[in-house]
Amino acid sequence: MSYFDDLKFDAQGLITAVVVDDATGDVLMVAHMNAEAVQRTVETMVATFWSRSRQTLWVKGEQSGHQQVVHAIRTDCDKDVLLLRVTLRGPGACHKGFRSCFSWQLSDAGDWQLVEEQVFDPQAAYGRQ
Amino acid sequence: MSYFDDLKFDAQGLITAVVVDDATGDVLMVAHMNAEAVQRTVETMVATFWSRSRQTLWVKGEQSGHQQVVHAIRTDCDKDVLLLRVTLRGPGACHKGFRSCFSWQLSDAGDWQLVEEQVFDPQAAYGRQ
Repeated sequence: MSYFDDLKFDAQGLITAVVVDDATGDVLMVAHMNAEAVQRTVETMVATFWSRSRQTLWVKGEQSGHQQVVHAIRTDCDKDVLLLRVTLRGPGACHKGFRSCFSWQLSDAGDWQLVEEQVFDPQAAYGRQ
Repeated sequence: MSYFDDLKFDAQGLITAVVVDDATGDVLMVAHMNAEAVQRTVETMVATFWSRSRQTLWVKGEQSGHQQVVHAIRTDCDKDVLLLRVTLRGPGACHKGFRSCFSWQLSDAGDWQLVEEQVFDPQAAYGRQ
């Protein structure tokens, strides 16, 4: 049985993928993959997702150039989440210009505070803020 | 506006939560929270989820004693995923006896290879394998 047959996709045919920065160990983003995205990622070792908003296959970085080269793929005990360790081609993974999408932290005051600095200009990379 | 009003729950009223080991930086597990689980987690700073299989609120560690003390909570640019940095009370987060649920790695042969060692006896902790 291959790796693929073991995976559990949800009712929408998707599996959650957690992307970890191989350089820092930080979680960069969480996205989703359909069957084709999983297979493309394994074949090319470049992170490829399913865009739920655009309903299309999405090679991360196809617009910004900030691709994610995959070094290792893990799965969890339930085989319903994937974890990718990647090297970023480019400064960041977040479409708002941060290295990680997880740049907002819950403060003692009970709101989300931005705790990281922008590392690139998202308008230059994506043509939008 | 409080932190809570900003979050985006899915059609099932759930938000994905990635749990990171504050000691090692490793991703321990991915689970889901409903509104009550988010509020309980913030109020108690002990990780509380929604069990989709049991359809009940689930204080992680309530059976095994391996609770997760939350140090920091982050969210991403879309506000639809939470990231918890935790300290484990106990040896591991995985119900199969591993520190992390992400203990299987895709091998060159194309199957999932167990690449971590068990750190506790799951049968003793949970009464099942």
